[in-house]
Amino acid sequence: MSLHGKSILAGHLAGPSSATFQAISPLTGQPLEPTFHQGTPSDVDAALQAAENAFQIYSALSAQKRAEFLEKIAEEILALGDELLQRTHLETGLPLERLTGERGRTMGQLRLFAEVIREGSWIDARIDTALPDRQPLPRPDLRRMMLPLGPVVVFGASNFPLAFSVAGGDTASALAAGCPVVVKGHPAHPGASELVAGAITKAAAACGLPAGVFSLIHGTTPEVGLALAKHPAARAVGFTGSHRAGRALFDAANSRPEPIPVFAEMSSLNPLIILPGALAERGAQIAEGLKTSVTMGVGQFCTKPGLIFAIAGEDFQKFIPLLQKAFQAAVPATMLHGGICASYHQGLKHLESITGVQKAAASEVEPAIDKTQAEAVLFITDSATFRKESALHEELFGPQTLLVTATDEADLLALIQSLNGQLTATVHGTTTDLAGAGAVFAALQQKAGRLVVNGFPTGVEVSPAMQHGGPYPATTDARFTSVGSAAIQRWARPVCFQNFPATALPEDLQDANPRGVMRLLNGQLTRAAV
Amino acid sequence: MSLHGKSILAGHLAGPSSATFQAISPLTGQPLEPTFHQGTPSDVDAALQAAENAFQIYSALSAQKRAEFLEKIAEEILALGDELLQRTHLETGLPLERLTGERGRTMGQLRLFAEVIREGSWIDARIDTALPDRQPLPRPDLRRMMLPLGPVVVFGASNFPLAFSVAGGDTASALAAGCPVVVKGHPAHPGASELVAGAITKAAAACGLPAGVFSLIHGTTPEVGLALAKHPAARAVGFTGSHRAGRALFDAANSRPEPIPVFAEMSSLNPLIILPGALAERGAQIAEGLKTSVTMGVGQFCTKPGLIFAIAGEDFQKFIPLLQKAFQAAVPATMLHGGICASYHQGLKHLESITGVQKAAASEVEPAIDKTQAEAVLFITDSATFRKESALHEELFGPQTLLVTATDEADLLALIQSLNGQLTATVHGTTTDLAGAGAVFAALQQKAGRLVVNGFPTGVEVSPAMQHGGPYPATTDARFTSVGSAAIQRWARPVCFQNFPATALPEDLQDANPRGVMRLLNGQLTRAAV
Repeated sequence: MSLHGKSILAGHLAGPSSATFQAISPLTGQPLEPTFHQGTPSDVDAALQAAENAFQIYSALSAQKRAEFLEKIAEEILALGDELLQRTHLETGLPLERLTGERGRTMGQLRLFAEVIREGSWIDARIDTALPDRQPLPRPDLRRMMLPLGPVVVFGASNFPLAFSVAGGDTASALAAGCPVVVKGHPAHPGASELVAGAITKAAAACGLPAGVFSLIHGTTPEVGLALAKHPAARAVGFTGSHRAGRALFDAANSRPEPIPVFAEMSSLNPLIILPGALAERGAQIAEGLKTSVTMGVGQFCTKPGLIFAIAGEDFQKFIPLLQKAFQAAVPATMLHGGICASYHQGLKHLESITGVQKAAASEVEPAIDKTQAEAVLFITDSATFRKESALHEELFGPQTLLVTATDEADLLALIQSLNGQLTATVHGTTTDLAGAGAVFAALQQKAGRLVVNGFPTGVEVSPAMQHGGPYPATTDARFTSVGSAAIQRWARPVCFQNFPATALPEDLQDANPRGVMRLLNGQLTRAAV
Repeated sequence: MSLHGKSILAGHLAGPSSATFQAISPLTGQPLEPTFHQGTPSDVDAALQAAENAFQIYSALSAQKRAEFLEKIAEEILALGDELLQRTHLETGLPLERLTGERGRTMGQLRLFAEVIREGSWIDARIDTALPDRQPLPRPDLRRMMLPLGPVVVFGASNFPLAFSVAGGDTASALAAGCPVVVKGHPAHPGASELVAGAITKAAAACGLPAGVFSLIHGTTPEVGLALAKHPAARAVGFTGSHRAGRALFDAANSRPEPIPVFAEMSSLNPLIILPGALAERGAQIAEGLKTSVTMGVGQFCTKPGLIFAIAGEDFQKFIPLLQKAFQAAVPATMLHGGICASYHQGLKHLESITGVQKAAASEVEPAIDKTQAEAVLFITDSATFRKESALHEELFGPQTLLVTATDEADLLALIQSLNGQLTATVHGTTTDLAGAGAVFAALQQKAGRLVVNGFPTGVEVSPAMQHGGPYPATTDARFTSVGSAAIQRWARPVCFQNFPATALPEDLQDANPRGVMRLLNGQLTRAAV
């Protein structure tokens, strides 16, 4: 199969553009064929107009039809076979084994959301039946459920070229909710984006859906993304990437005449706190686990533990060389693209330049620059320096972490209180440690969306209880998650139907409850009919 | 009981301020004693610092304790007796009977949210138990629930001096969620605000709560409100008022280094569509109902039907004089304050000046200017003028409405599509009308948060299925409601606890489920233990 290099606008290829680009393989530093055409303002308009038109039809489809579409997308992605994995490998440098797993996760997410909408309780259906004889005034019949917002703009992420890109979690959850999707493809993996977009386009056609339900727009500049977020037909934005880009989208969306929600997952240091007992009991094991978690995916996970807090003392002094040794043994590996790798090395240099920050260890093997490789690096600093230097509160994407020494328990708490918002926060402790860690947990709860005990934050489960979203700047909206079945809640708003004739009600609000969805009926949860 | 005229900061009276004001009774146009002191920047800081300190303790209280606090507030409000009703009547001109009912609603809301948190399912508890043997990776134990955001700033509304002011729906739901509240009192009824704030303060002391759980700050300028919304300790804002003020708060909150959510309920025309069969069958009844709904509370409800759409024809020609007659018979009444009354009359003048808009009827009795009275007014225009003139798309607060003539069904649909976001939209129709109104319902669903059939939008039920919130500019966040039990969802965010020791888990996530709250346990809703 050869790649055409065009944006896909509601099933049609966009025309050529004066601005073009090529993917650069991080494995070789060499450009990959073919040339890709950037989306133009008129492409943006065409995609969103088509999405708006498709919305009327798509949002009115039954959950069953939408579920079949999601499952068909999964099937078509699998049908792309090795070509998808090979192309993605070339574009991202990610190992084939990882990509095979990520493809499985991508299909799993599509199927999960199919299941979520078939089951139906996500619509939070509520029915208050009429009380015609109530005094002083009768109560009308009120029925409320979640309905889709409208066209959603999704930005593909570079670090999950399948699971958080064209057909990733944002797209799957938005399509499940009943929203057409326009994806802005990440320019680091345009070939993978085109292949997956082709799969979605085929699935839409096979399911007899309006083609406007999905479009892919290529772009390397912020302008394309901002134009998408500002288009009047866009009703919400899903984004995973840098703080700067996420904030720019957030600001653009909020300065519209009609603001729209932006769910941007941006930046997190994922602090990991080692309590004294755990440090004494299993410092070596924690050091090894930390190295693995920090270097997993070459440190390019949003949940990479980039901060470690522990209290100074004898056990801490024993712990440092263990961690140093683990980092020295870590093998350099290829990052996602040259830009990320350059930023990483620039960030390392900046950290080294800060007074009070020591570079304590690095991979002994030198990274191969022509293979876009990055070495693992461990920094150490004290709590006063950490609180003072704002650069130490910013995420550095790559296999690096910073160990911060607290002088005592109070200093540890002060460190936690100085943190910005985080996706995750982790505590390692013995049973005794944890029993006395009430203040630590209470403080961390204000800072993060997910708290982990005696584990590592990398590895984000896709399940009902997952929360992947935390206080700003981790995300722009800590009230929602971008991973797990609750991610569908981002793309809907409640509508109340008062005194509606039965035939005009959505199926799931009708007396008979034909699908048997869970509903709050006069204050009681039930799957029963009215 | 004499009024002190000071802001109440965490149980203490604020010092005097150089800027003072008095309430002006709309019934007489005369100032009322005493003088009130505006909040200063240091008052704002003191209130929010105290709220932040109180948050740690208050948010950790059991639902039972918080419920008792809400019920105690209701009790203390009732204990204010006639003095509260009399003072509020003097400050707002609202009849005592209405205020008695509104006090009942206020206490009802406090008790409703006490019930909501005792029952507990609002926390959306989700538990995925560990799967240690899962391949290729084990699943950790994940438990997720909603936790309070932190200090909430609430702006009292002028049109519900009890039910949407100091101890109104925003305050009740935020306190229920576990958030301390700082209220910016509406300057039109500072005496009522002081009395109710005193009741809350007494209730907090009686329940042994930190006084920082509640503060009241007086202010007549936008600066006080903006300072509250920009304070670093503020975590969310609840507001009911004008589009301009709501947008200013929204913009201020979003331009913070860490943006916070703003739930502003701002502006809605609440279109009411009369389909041909209904117009023919019961035009007189609809005309009378419309007059009642438009003039209820002197047109000062956010759900007042300010727009009527109907298709031209013989029945329409018969309907106009019926509506005219009803409006002519409407008796002028006192508005909430001089500013609103002046804006109303200015708005009427502006409407009269628009080419294509006819003033079709007005109250025959002249309004008494010294009693801040407003007359009911009916305007008529055609669909082309409506679509062209942006002023016709803006809410005019007061007993006025605009009847818009559509040429045919397609023109009616085009009218609906030209609408901004609305709180409500209403359709009157016969069974036959409604059976053929699919396109009308589909279009309205995109425009409003609540759709009403054969009723009137005024009268907002406080119940689980209510939705009071719609697309911008009706509200800044259509995904939430400010009325009904779901209003509590605005003040919380989910937190996931991974592999937590049982004793460190919040009670409602523990295996035993001691309160028996509804939880999603491995994908199944149940009140059972794990």
